[in-house]
Amino acid sequence: MIQTITVTTGERCQLVDVTSKVQKAVRETRLSSGYVICYVPHTTAGITIQENADPDVIHDFLWKLADLVPHVEASYRHGEGNSDAHIKASLVGASQTILVEDGSLVLGTWQGIYFCEFDGPRQRKLHIRCVAG
Amino acid sequence: MIQTITVTTGERCQLVDVTSKVQKAVRETRLSSGYVICYVPHTTAGITIQENADPDVIHDFLWKLADLVPHVEASYRHGEGNSDAHIKASLVGASQTILVEDGSLVLGTWQGIYFCEFDGPRQRKLHIRCVAG
Amino acid sequence: MIQTITVTTGERCQLVDVTSKVQKAVRETRLSSGYVICYVPHTTAGITIQENADPDVIHDFLWKLADLVPHVEASYRHGEGNSDAHIKASLVGASQTILVEDGSLVLGTWQGIYFCEFDGPRQRKLHIRCVAG
Repeated sequence: MIQTITVTTGERCQLVDVTSKVQKAVRETRLSSGYVICYVPHTTAGITIQENADPDVIHDFLWKLADLVPHVEASYRHGEGNSDAHIKASLVGASQTILVEDGSLVLGTWQGIYFCEFDGPRQRKLHIRCVAG
Repeated sequence: MIQTITVTTGERCQLVDVTSKVQKAVRETRLSSGYVICYVPHTTAGITIQENADPDVIHDFLWKLADLVPHVEASYRHGEGNSDAHIKASLVGASQTILVEDGSLVLGTWQGIYFCEFDGPRQRKLHIRCVAG
Repeated sequence: MIQTITVTTGERCQLVDVTSKVQKAVRETRLSSGYVICYVPHTTAGITIQENADPDVIHDFLWKLADLVPHVEASYRHGEGNSDAHIKASLVGASQTILVEDGSLVLGTWQGIYFCEFDGPRQRKLHIRCVAG
Protein backbone atom coordinates (compact mmCIF):
# COMPACT_ATOMS: atom_id res chain seq x y z
CA MET A 1 0.00 0.00 0.00
CA ILE A 2 1.26 3.45 -0.89
CA GLN A 3 0.35 6.24 1.50
CA THR A 4 0.52 9.79 0.21
CA ILE A 5 1.30 12.80 2.37
CA THR A 6 0.46 16.30 1.20
CA VAL A 7 3.03 19.02 1.75
CA THR A 8 2.08 22.65 1.23
CA THR A 9 5.05 24.95 0.72
CA GLY A 10 5.06 28.73 1.13
CA GLU A 11 8.32 29.83 -0.46
CA ARG A 12 10.28 29.15 -3.62
CA CYS A 13 12.97 27.28 -1.70
CA GLN A 14 12.07 25.75 1.63
CA LEU A 15 12.73 22.68 3.73
CA VAL A 16 9.65 21.26 5.45
CA ASP A 17 10.11 18.85 8.37
CA VAL A 18 7.90 15.84 7.57
CA THR A 19 9.27 13.51 10.26
CA SER A 20 6.08 13.41 12.32
CA LYS A 21 3.92 12.84 9.23
CA VAL A 22 6.12 9.93 8.14
CA GLN A 23 6.08 8.51 11.68
CA LYS A 24 2.28 8.77 11.72
CA ALA A 25 2.05 6.92 8.40
CA VAL A 26 4.30 4.17 9.79
CA ARG A 27 2.08 3.80 12.87
CA GLU A 28 -1.05 3.56 10.71
CA THR A 29 0.37 0.49 8.97
CA ARG A 30 1.22 -1.12 12.33
CA LEU A 31 4.66 -1.91 10.91
CA SER A 32 6.87 -3.11 13.72
CA SER A 33 10.23 -3.92 12.14
CA GLY A 34 11.35 -2.97 8.65
CA TYR A 35 11.82 0.26 6.80
CA VAL A 36 9.97 3.00 5.02
CA ILE A 37 10.63 4.28 1.51
CA CYS A 38 9.79 7.98 1.04
CA TYR A 39 9.48 9.02 -2.62
CA VAL A 40 8.98 12.49 -4.12
CA PRO A 41 7.03 12.34 -7.43
CA HIS A 42 8.22 15.79 -8.56
CA THR A 43 11.25 16.93 -10.57
CA THR A 44 11.76 20.26 -8.80
CA ALA A 45 11.66 18.95 -5.24
CA GLY A 46 13.56 16.36 -3.22
CA ILE A 47 13.93 14.78 0.20
CA THR A 48 16.86 14.75 2.60
CA ILE A 49 17.85 13.88 6.15
CA GLN A 50 19.14 16.89 8.07
CA GLU A 51 19.49 18.34 11.56
CA ASN A 52 16.21 19.15 13.29
CA ALA A 53 17.59 21.29 16.12
CA ASP A 54 19.06 24.57 14.82
CA PRO A 55 17.10 26.20 11.95
CA ASP A 56 20.35 27.91 10.92
CA VAL A 57 21.56 24.57 9.55
CA ILE A 58 18.63 24.59 7.14
CA HIS A 59 19.35 28.20 6.22
CA ASP A 60 22.98 27.42 5.49
CA PHE A 61 22.04 24.38 3.39
CA LEU A 62 19.60 26.36 1.24
CA TRP A 63 22.03 29.27 0.95
CA LYS A 64 24.88 27.04 -0.23
CA LEU A 65 22.66 25.22 -2.73
CA ALA A 66 21.64 28.59 -4.20
CA ASP A 67 25.28 29.68 -4.17
CA LEU A 68 26.33 26.60 -6.16
CA VAL A 69 23.24 26.44 -8.38
CA PRO A 70 21.97 30.01 -8.93
CA HIS A 71 18.41 30.69 -10.00
CA VAL A 72 19.63 32.43 -13.16
CA GLU A 73 22.62 31.44 -15.29
CA ALA A 74 23.41 32.57 -18.83
CA SER A 75 24.02 28.95 -19.87
CA TYR A 76 20.64 27.60 -18.79
CA ARG A 77 18.46 26.77 -21.82
CA HIS A 78 15.26 25.49 -20.17
CA GLY A 79 12.62 28.17 -20.71
CA GLU A 80 10.64 27.82 -17.48
CA GLY A 81 13.19 29.60 -15.31
CA ASN A 82 13.50 26.70 -12.88
CA SER A 83 16.58 24.88 -14.13
CA ASP A 84 18.15 25.41 -10.70
CA ALA A 85 15.25 23.55 -9.08
CA HIS A 86 15.68 20.56 -11.41
CA ILE A 87 19.42 20.41 -10.74
CA LYS A 88 19.02 20.71 -6.96
CA ALA A 89 16.41 17.94 -7.05
CA SER A 90 18.88 15.54 -8.67
CA LEU A 91 21.67 16.48 -6.26
CA VAL A 92 19.52 16.00 -3.16
CA GLY A 93 17.62 12.98 -4.51
CA ALA A 94 14.03 11.88 -4.95
CA SER A 95 13.88 9.27 -2.19
CA GLN A 96 15.06 8.30 1.27
CA THR A 97 14.92 4.91 2.95
CA ILE A 98 14.63 4.99 6.75
CA LEU A 99 14.79 1.97 9.07
CA VAL A 100 11.93 1.19 11.45
CA GLU A 101 12.16 -0.76 14.73
CA ASP A 102 9.42 -1.28 17.34
CA GLY A 103 7.14 0.86 15.18
CA SER A 104 9.46 3.88 15.33
CA LEU A 105 11.68 5.52 12.75
CA VAL A 106 15.33 4.74 13.56
CA LEU A 107 16.73 8.25 13.23
CA GLY A 108 19.85 9.65 14.85
CA THR A 109 19.37 12.01 17.80
CA TRP A 110 19.53 15.13 15.64
CA GLN A 111 18.01 13.78 12.44
CA GLY A 112 14.77 14.87 10.84
CA ILE A 113 13.25 14.05 7.44
CA TYR A 114 12.89 17.14 5.27
CA PHE A 115 10.85 17.65 2.13
CA CYS A 116 12.91 19.99 -0.08
CA GLU A 117 10.91 22.51 -2.09
CA PHE A 118 12.98 24.15 -4.83
CA ASP A 119 10.25 25.72 -7.00
CA GLY A 120 7.40 26.71 -4.71
CA PRO A 121 5.13 27.73 -3.35
CA ARG A 122 3.14 24.65 -4.39
CA GLN A 123 1.05 21.81 -3.08
CA ARG A 124 3.27 18.70 -3.18
CA LYS A 125 2.98 14.98 -2.59
CA LEU A 126 5.23 12.56 -0.78
CA HIS A 127 4.66 8.84 -1.39
CA ILE A 128 5.41 6.41 1.42
CA ARG A 129 5.66 2.64 1.38
CA CYS A 130 6.22 0.74 4.63
CA VAL A 131 7.94 -2.61 4.24
CA ALA A 132 8.37 -5.36 6.83
CA GLY A 133 11.68 -7.19 6.85
CA MET B 1 16.65 -12.40 -9.09
CA ILE B 2 18.82 -9.63 -10.45
CA GLN B 3 18.04 -8.45 -13.95
CA THR B 4 20.74 -6.58 -15.83
CA ILE B 5 20.08 -3.91 -18.43
CA THR B 6 22.78 -2.89 -20.88
CA VAL B 7 23.21 0.81 -21.60
CA THR B 8 25.40 1.92 -24.49
CA THR B 9 26.52 5.53 -24.25
CA GLY B 10 27.84 7.67 -27.07
CA GLU B 11 29.35 10.68 -25.36
CA ARG B 12 31.63 11.41 -22.42
CA CYS B 13 28.77 12.91 -20.41
CA GLN B 14 25.24 11.88 -21.27
CA LEU B 15 21.93 11.08 -19.62
CA VAL B 16 20.13 8.06 -21.07
CA ASP B 17 16.41 7.59 -20.36
CA VAL B 18 16.05 4.00 -19.11
CA THR B 19 12.46 4.30 -17.87
CA SER B 20 10.95 1.96 -20.46
CA LYS B 21 13.70 -0.63 -19.94
CA VAL B 22 13.12 -0.59 -16.18
CA GLN B 23 9.35 -0.81 -16.72
CA LYS B 24 9.87 -3.79 -19.04
CA ALA B 25 12.03 -5.53 -16.43
CA VAL B 26 9.32 -4.96 -13.82
CA ARG B 27 6.67 -6.48 -16.11
CA GLU B 28 8.85 -9.54 -16.78
CA THR B 29 8.87 -10.34 -13.06
CA ARG B 30 5.06 -9.97 -12.89
CA LEU B 31 5.56 -7.82 -9.79
CA SER B 32 2.26 -6.18 -8.90
CA SER B 33 2.91 -4.13 -5.79
CA GLY B 34 6.31 -3.28 -4.33
CA TYR B 35 9.33 -1.44 -5.57
CA VAL B 36 12.36 -1.74 -7.78
CA ILE B 37 15.96 -1.08 -6.81
CA CYS B 38 18.13 0.17 -9.70
CA TYR B 39 21.86 -0.12 -9.04
CA VAL B 40 24.80 1.12 -11.14
CA PRO B 41 27.90 -1.11 -10.70
CA HIS B 42 30.29 1.57 -11.99
CA THR B 43 32.24 4.34 -10.24
CA THR B 44 32.09 6.88 -13.07
CA ALA B 45 28.35 6.68 -13.73
CA GLY B 46 25.19 7.15 -11.69
CA ILE B 47 21.42 7.15 -11.83
CA THR B 48 18.93 9.93 -11.21
CA ILE B 49 15.28 10.85 -11.56
CA GLN B 50 14.76 13.88 -13.79
CA GLU B 51 12.27 15.53 -16.12
CA ASN B 52 11.47 13.57 -19.29
CA ALA B 53 9.74 16.35 -21.25
CA ASP B 54 12.18 19.12 -22.20
CA PRO B 55 15.69 17.94 -23.21
CA ASP B 56 16.99 21.37 -22.15
CA VAL B 57 16.57 20.29 -18.52
CA ILE B 58 19.07 17.49 -19.14
CA HIS B 59 21.41 19.93 -20.89
CA ASP B 60 21.27 22.35 -17.99
CA PHE B 61 21.89 19.57 -15.47
CA LEU B 62 24.97 18.30 -17.32
CA TRP B 63 26.24 21.84 -17.89
CA LYS B 64 25.95 22.77 -14.21
CA LEU B 65 27.62 19.53 -13.07
CA ALA B 66 30.55 20.30 -15.40
CA ASP B 67 30.58 23.89 -14.16
CA LEU B 68 30.85 22.72 -10.53
CA VAL B 69 33.12 19.75 -11.19
CA PRO B 70 35.35 20.58 -14.19
CA HIS B 71 37.03 17.83 -16.21
CA VAL B 72 40.46 19.27 -15.40
CA GLU B 73 41.56 20.83 -12.10
CA ALA B 74 45.12 21.50 -10.95
CA SER B 75 44.37 19.86 -7.59
CA TYR B 76 43.19 16.53 -8.98
CA ARG B 77 45.75 13.77 -8.31
CA HIS B 78 44.10 10.73 -9.93
CA GLY B 79 46.10 9.93 -13.06
CA GLU B 80 43.32 8.67 -15.33
CA GLY B 81 41.86 12.09 -16.08
CA ASN B 82 38.37 11.15 -14.91
CA SER B 83 38.31 12.48 -11.35
CA ASP B 84 35.33 14.62 -12.32
CA ALA B 85 33.40 11.49 -13.32
CA HIS B 86 34.08 9.82 -9.96
CA ILE B 87 32.98 12.92 -8.07
CA LYS B 88 29.80 13.38 -10.12
CA ALA B 89 28.95 9.70 -9.58
CA SER B 90 29.02 10.16 -5.81
CA LEU B 91 26.98 13.36 -5.94
CA VAL B 92 24.27 11.83 -8.14
CA GLY B 93 24.35 8.42 -6.47
CA ALA B 94 24.67 4.79 -7.52
CA SER B 95 21.10 3.70 -6.94
CA GLN B 96 17.45 4.70 -7.06
CA THR B 97 14.46 3.02 -5.47
CA ILE B 98 11.16 3.46 -7.31
CA LEU B 99 7.75 2.32 -6.10
CA VAL B 100 5.59 -0.06 -8.16
CA GLU B 101 1.81 -0.40 -8.04
CA ASP B 102 -0.43 -2.50 -10.34
CA GLY B 103 2.71 -3.55 -12.19
CA SER B 104 3.65 0.02 -13.12
CA LEU B 105 6.40 2.32 -11.92
CA VAL B 106 4.92 5.01 -9.68
CA LEU B 107 6.61 8.03 -11.24
CA GLY B 108 5.45 11.62 -11.19
CA THR B 109 3.91 13.01 -14.39
CA TRP B 110 7.20 14.50 -15.58
CA GLN B 111 9.62 11.98 -14.10
CA GLY B 112 11.92 9.64 -15.99
CA ILE B 113 14.75 7.40 -14.80
CA TYR B 114 18.08 8.44 -16.26
CA PHE B 115 21.35 6.51 -16.42
CA CYS B 116 24.10 9.12 -15.97
CA GLU B 117 27.24 8.53 -18.03
CA PHE B 118 30.15 10.67 -16.85
CA ASP B 119 33.12 8.94 -18.54
CA GLY B 120 31.87 7.49 -21.81
CA PRO B 121 31.37 6.43 -24.40
CA ARG B 122 31.15 2.94 -22.88
CA GLN B 123 28.95 -0.12 -22.61
CA ARG B 124 27.42 -0.01 -19.14
CA LYS B 125 25.27 -2.17 -16.91
CA LEU B 126 22.31 -1.37 -14.70
CA HIS B 127 21.26 -3.97 -12.14
CA ILE B 128 17.60 -4.21 -11.20
CA ARG B 129 15.93 -6.08 -8.38
CA CYS B 130 12.13 -6.12 -8.11
CA VAL B 131 10.78 -6.61 -4.60
CA ALA B 132 7.22 -7.33 -3.53
CA GLY B 133 6.00 -5.62 -0.39
CA MET C 1 17.21 -7.05 12.91
CA ILE C 2 19.39 -3.98 12.77
CA GLN C 3 23.13 -4.55 13.00
CA THR C 4 25.31 -1.61 14.00
CA ILE C 5 28.89 -1.15 12.87
CA THR C 6 31.20 1.23 14.70
CA VAL C 7 33.44 3.48 12.64
CA THR C 8 36.25 5.43 14.31
CA THR C 9 37.50 8.35 12.27
CA GLY C 10 40.82 10.13 12.73
CA GLU C 11 40.46 13.31 10.68
CA ARG C 12 37.90 16.06 10.18
CA CYS C 13 37.11 14.87 6.66
CA GLN C 14 37.84 11.28 5.77
CA LEU C 15 36.41 8.40 3.78
CA VAL C 16 36.57 5.02 5.53
CA ASP C 17 36.16 1.84 3.47
CA VAL C 18 33.51 -0.22 5.28
CA THR C 19 32.95 -2.80 2.52
CA SER C 20 34.40 -5.74 4.46
CA LYS C 21 32.45 -4.82 7.60
CA VAL C 22 29.20 -4.66 5.63
CA GLN C 23 30.02 -7.95 3.91
CA LYS C 24 30.70 -9.54 7.31
CA ALA C 25 27.35 -8.29 8.62
CA VAL C 26 25.61 -9.78 5.59
CA ARG C 27 27.28 -13.16 6.17
CA GLU C 28 26.25 -13.16 9.83
CA THR C 29 22.58 -12.96 8.82
CA ARG C 30 23.05 -15.86 6.35
CA LEU C 31 21.19 -13.75 3.78
CA SER C 32 21.52 -15.41 0.39
CA SER C 33 19.59 -13.24 -2.04
CA GLY C 34 18.27 -9.75 -1.36
CA TYR C 35 19.85 -6.46 -0.44
CA VAL C 36 21.31 -4.53 2.41
CA ILE C 37 20.31 -1.04 3.54
CA CYS C 38 23.18 0.94 5.11
CA TYR C 39 22.02 3.97 7.12
CA VAL C 40 24.10 6.70 8.79
CA PRO C 41 22.35 8.11 11.91
CA HIS C 42 24.40 11.32 11.92
CA THR C 43 23.86 14.73 10.29
CA THR C 44 27.53 15.51 9.62
CA ALA C 45 28.46 12.23 7.96
CA GLY C 46 27.23 10.23 4.99
CA ILE C 47 27.81 7.11 2.93
CA THR C 48 28.79 6.69 -0.71
CA ILE C 49 29.94 4.15 -3.26
CA GLN C 50 33.32 5.00 -4.73
CA GLU C 51 36.44 3.48 -6.31
CA ASN C 52 38.45 1.24 -4.00
CA ALA C 53 41.63 1.02 -6.09
CA ASP C 54 43.43 4.39 -6.29
CA PRO C 55 43.38 6.46 -3.05
CA ASP C 56 43.83 9.56 -5.20
CA VAL C 57 40.17 9.24 -6.24
CA ILE C 58 39.18 9.64 -2.59
CA HIS C 59 41.55 12.60 -2.24
CA ASP C 60 40.05 14.30 -5.28
CA PHE C 61 36.50 13.71 -4.05
CA LEU C 62 37.21 15.23 -0.62
CA TRP C 63 39.15 18.10 -2.18
CA LYS C 64 36.33 18.99 -4.58
CA LEU C 65 33.69 18.77 -1.84
CA ALA C 66 35.75 21.21 0.26
CA ASP C 67 36.24 23.41 -2.81
CA LEU C 68 32.48 23.60 -3.39
CA VAL C 69 31.46 23.72 0.28
CA PRO C 70 34.23 25.49 2.23
CA HIS C 71 34.61 25.03 5.98
CA VAL C 72 34.13 28.76 6.55
CA GLU C 73 31.76 31.07 4.65
CA ALA C 74 30.63 34.56 5.66
CA SER C 75 27.01 33.60 4.96
CA TYR C 76 26.90 30.58 7.26
CA ARG C 77 24.78 31.28 10.36
CA HIS C 78 25.04 27.99 12.27
CA GLY C 79 27.22 28.66 15.30
CA GLU C 80 29.00 25.32 15.62
CA GLY C 81 31.37 25.88 12.71
CA ASN C 82 30.32 22.71 10.90
CA SER C 83 27.75 23.97 8.40
CA ASP C 84 29.93 22.54 5.64
CA ALA C 85 29.65 19.07 7.21
CA HIS C 86 25.85 19.28 7.31
CA ILE C 87 25.66 20.39 3.68
CA LYS C 88 28.07 17.70 2.46
CA ALA C 89 26.06 15.07 4.37
CA SER C 90 22.89 16.01 2.46
CA LEU C 91 24.67 16.06 -0.89
CA VAL C 92 26.27 12.64 -0.39
CA GLY C 93 23.26 11.10 1.37
CA ALA C 94 22.54 9.19 4.58
CA SER C 95 21.96 5.76 3.09
CA GLN C 96 22.94 3.31 0.39
CA THR C 97 21.13 0.19 -0.78
CA ILE C 98 23.36 -2.58 -2.14
CA LEU C 99 22.18 -5.79 -3.78
CA VAL C 100 23.19 -9.20 -2.40
CA GLU C 101 23.40 -12.49 -4.33
CA ASP C 102 24.75 -15.86 -3.10
CA GLY C 103 25.56 -14.15 0.20
CA SER C 104 27.86 -11.58 -1.41
CA LEU C 105 27.50 -7.87 -2.03
CA VAL C 106 26.89 -7.23 -5.72
CA LEU C 107 29.42 -4.46 -6.25
CA GLY C 108 31.11 -3.44 -9.48
CA THR C 109 34.74 -4.45 -9.94
CA TRP C 110 36.09 -1.15 -8.63
CA GLN C 111 33.36 -0.29 -6.12
CA GLY C 112 33.74 -0.01 -2.38
CA ILE C 113 31.35 1.29 0.29
CA TYR C 114 32.70 4.35 2.05
CA PHE C 115 31.60 5.94 5.30
CA CYS C 116 32.04 9.70 4.80
CA GLU C 117 33.23 11.62 7.86
CA PHE C 118 32.80 15.38 7.48
CA ASP C 119 33.18 16.57 11.09
CA GLY C 120 35.59 14.22 12.83
CA PRO C 121 37.48 12.79 14.42
CA ARG C 122 34.60 10.98 16.11
CA GLN C 123 33.26 7.55 16.93
CA ARG C 124 30.40 6.91 14.51
CA LYS C 125 27.70 4.33 13.88
CA LEU C 126 26.46 2.71 10.70
CA HIS C 127 23.14 0.84 10.86
CA ILE C 128 22.63 -2.15 8.57
CA ARG C 129 19.49 -4.08 7.73
CA CYS C 130 19.67 -7.16 5.53
CA VAL C 131 16.51 -7.95 3.61
CA ALA C 132 15.66 -11.10 1.66
CA GLY C 133 13.78 -10.63 -1.57
